[in-house]
Amino acid sequence: MTEKSQSITVLRLGHRTGRDPRISTHLGLTARAFGADTFLLAGDYDSSLLSGIGDVAERFGGEFEVRHEESPLGFLRRFVGAGGVAVHLTMYGLPYHDVIPSLPHDKPLAIVLGGAKVPREFFEICQHNVAVGNQPHSEVAALAAFLECYSGGAAGATEFEGGKLEVHPTERGKDLRESVDEE
Amino acid sequence: MTEKSQSITVLRLGHRTGRDPRISTHLGLTARAFGADTFLLAGDYDSSLLSGIGDVAERFGGEFEVRHEESPLGFLRRFVGAGGVAVHLTMYGLPYHDVIPSLPHDKPLAIVLGGAKVPREFFEICQHNVAVGNQPHSEVAALAAFLECYSGGAAGATEFEGGKLEVHPTERGKDLRESVDEE
Repeated sequence: MTEKSQSITVLRLGHRTGRDPRISTHLGLTARAFGADTFLLAGDYDSSLLSGIGDVAERFGGEFEVRHEESPLGFLRRFVGAGGVAVHLTMYGLPYHDVIPSLPHDKPLAIVLGGAKVPREFFEICQHNVAVGNQPHSEVAALAAFLECYSGGAAGATEFEGGKLEVHPTERGKDLRESVDEE
Repeated sequence: MTEKSQSITVLRLGHRTGRDPRISTHLGLTARAFGADTFLLAGDYDSSLLSGIGDVAERFGGEFEVRHEESPLGFLRRFVGAGGVAVHLTMYGLPYHDVIPSLPHDKPLAIVLGGAKVPREFFEICQHNVAVGNQPHSEVAALAAFLECYSGGAAGATEFEGGKLEVHPTERGKDLRESVDEE
């Protein structure tokens, strides 16, 4: 895993309340499970989606910020202006296996994911337009594969502290336990 | 990438027509983009989903089989009986980074993905129950991260032959071209 000191933000563009709730939820949960600390939802304001992701974070532990972002372009301008590195994942970009080794690990990172139609400005403000394969597939898959390569993938159960539930890895079946309170 | 000779099948359990079309579509497209050759949809029969994935495969090239599987347990019994290796991705399983190095690359592989509630038999018939992190996230992310580790991730544009469209990787913007017919 990347050192915990690096901040990773996942920014989901163009969310549509009626159509996208499951994909956006999967993006938020994937961001959390793969070590991001912040998930920003742009597009429609969707309180049940935001609170659903927040509930998982509360039950399973760890620090994770989830919120709506009214102005994703403004956010990115400030983020890049303050020294952050913005990576836009798009099937039109440069091959991820080529780009990832050149990305720093000592600056804040923002990973930007479309949306059905991403305005041209996002291709310009992001310093890197990166393709996880040049085939149509899935924003969720792109995020997971990118973070697998960039920072070593999904964190183990011990990385999330303070939750009410924890999974104990097992060869067969399910072992989900309530966390023991420290008294 | 894994040698092309290895067959990789992705089996999606418990599809529900009304609720799951986008997640199952993302799974099918991710399977294709990350080098699987077959996508089997169990649960509800959903002809528009199957033909939607088939259309992408036709437009963007390569060999990819997509079909409904009426009896996923029967399929897995035959698959394992014939020498295949079945890996069930579940947040309750053993850590993927530990298991993947022990998996063979010279036998057919089936990757099994739930479904809201996976019957116990699937945990038993699959030789490996593997967790891509023990946190709740996404079947699509689990598939992508697993294949990133197991076989090197998303294939480049040149891996898919015979399509009508091809993406040319670019640093800024979009470069989608119609393939030139060979005459």
